[in-house]
Amino acid sequence: MQPLRFENNILYVLDQTKLPGQVDYLKIDSCAGVCEAIKNLSVRGAPAIGVAAGYGVALAALSIKTGGMSEFLTQLEKAIAEIKSTRPTAQNLFQVTSRMSQIAFECDTPGSAREKLALEATKIHEEQARILTHCNTGSLATAGYGTALGVIKYAFNQGKKVEVIATETRPLLQGSRLTTLELKEEKIPFILITDSMAGHFMRLGKINIVITGADRISLNGDTANKIGTYSLAVLAEFHNIPFYIAAPITTFDANSSSGRDIIIEERSSEEITHFNCHSLAPAGVHVRNPAFDITPSALIRGYITEKGIFKADEIASLLA
Amino acid sequence: MQPLRFENNILYVLDQTKLPGQVDYLKIDSCAGVCEAIKNLSVRGAPAIGVAAGYGVALAALSIKTGGMSEFLTQLEKAIAEIKSTRPTAQNLFQVTSRMSQIAFECDTPGSAREKLALEATKIHEEQARILTHCNTGSLATAGYGTALGVIKYAFNQGKKVEVIATETRPLLQGSRLTTLELKEEKIPFILITDSMAGHFMRLGKINIVITGADRISLNGDTANKIGTYSLAVLAEFHNIPFYIAAPITTFDANSSSGRDIIIEERSSEEITHFNCHSLAPAGVHVRNPAFDITPSALIRGYITEKGIFKADEIASLLA
Repeated sequence: MQPLRFENNILYVLDQTKLPGQVDYLKIDSCAGVCEAIKNLSVRGAPAIGVAAGYGVALAALSIKTGGMSEFLTQLEKAIAEIKSTRPTAQNLFQVTSRMSQIAFECDTPGSAREKLALEATKIHEEQARILTHCNTGSLATAGYGTALGVIKYAFNQGKKVEVIATETRPLLQGSRLTTLELKEEKIPFILITDSMAGHFMRLGKINIVITGADRISLNGDTANKIGTYSLAVLAEFHNIPFYIAAPITTFDANSSSGRDIIIEERSSEEITHFNCHSLAPAGVHVRNPAFDITPSALIRGYITEKGIFKADEIASLLA
Repeated sequence: MQPLRFENNILYVLDQTKLPGQVDYLKIDSCAGVCEAIKNLSVRGAPAIGVAAGYGVALAALSIKTGGMSEFLTQLEKAIAEIKSTRPTAQNLFQVTSRMSQIAFECDTPGSAREKLALEATKIHEEQARILTHCNTGSLATAGYGTALGVIKYAFNQGKKVEVIATETRPLLQGSRLTTLELKEEKIPFILITDSMAGHFMRLGKINIVITGADRISLNGDTANKIGTYSLAVLAEFHNIPFYIAAPITTFDANSSSGRDIIIEERSSEEITHFNCHSLAPAGVHVRNPAFDITPSALIRGYITEKGIFKADEIASLLA
């Protein structure tokens, strides 16, 4: 069951208000029709609303009958304002409309804008959620479904288009050794990168969201996790990419008020200087090898738990 | 020849205006004396000015004769304002005075403030420059003195207190294999970390400056360098740590207007999936292995060359 399909300038919308009783597709050929479908919840869920909004802008562009670019843009912005007013919360709605608006502004004629906007809407529809994750947080680490990787598996099994970017996670390479193994078994598409590549791929727009696990979460939301997590959170913040922690309620520590209370384990320098008895560095070098780092709650968009997704300021009442 | 020495509440300042003819130490026992020495260039160079400023605040605190904390702070802030007005450019001056001011505000009595400010000034004097560098940029890479590592060696041989934080630089480990070897030979203190630890140590205040080399620098200052450099530049920006590129003039490419013109080499996936014939990942995993990334000039504080230190907007005229 596809929630949305675009063919010959018609948007087919699975009317979710009639499910499960009836599988009915609305045939929509105007921006106003798309707005109506979003408002009355025929199409729902932030990503699907975003995709529908993209098609809404494309349909608006097709309907504007004017030769002049300036008048075209004025009318298009009116349509975009209408789309944006349909629902107040879904972030995707605003991201998509601003992206479409940008495309229109870069065109020289209404004709090329109509073409490029239709293409862009299709592109938005086809885009995968590219999820970066760090370390191993699947069934191997959790003796169950997994935390960050569990969320990813769940999304994939729900039919979401998902691609995982797995960091190798030095020094012990849990990403390249373990996460890749689990992703392969689940047939989830993925790419393996070194930890140092995360910023590069964020800059290129190849990462939509970062989800990691946690070793301990303080009452204020500060989170201890595998070394490198903090760098990823800063990089995500810089690139305006949402950063989430996935963890069961048992990972929250009611006795720790902030990250300052969390002691970080320092592990053997050989984890960095050696691999399988091979030496990677001259003998006797000084090494620091903290196993974890602390990510302050200010960098964390939310905490994905078995009881729902929470914000840092909701943790105390969640545990109470 | 020590530029500054503090003993029994007297600051001895090597009068650099009389060098090389005369080695003369000024004996300074007041904040006004320190301000004078900074203004007339008896003490010069941003780090030395910073250290002198710290002692200036400590001397001011010692001279304020009042029992009340509020009056003490008012008079101390006046002295700090005087120190800050001595020279307009040296960043260290402002960093140090703001740090001393913070210390004073956290004290309960003028007595404890006098003590803690004197201690802090000494601490600032003793602090090492902790320089993070990435990949190998020493004599092995440059067939000469080196670029980023050359700057570090030069500073060390000039008697500066230097500690290097060397990233291992995955996938080919030029940091752990080569940079450590050169630092060891030069007897420069250093610590080896994984690439993923940089943010953690920046957050802990353990890094004062980042210097890397460059593979190519565009006319607008965008810089291609070893993969991971861009992440370090973003992390430095987030933590307000200066990020510099060290490179000879020949690395600047007058034919490249910006980083968009630079093609990034993609290398074999085995560099990531294998080490010395050992497999680090399941067979057949998809890997991305860009050898370089692009750091936009907005993140680069300056370019250290054989002709001096330049800013991005000076590159075009430098090459002309």
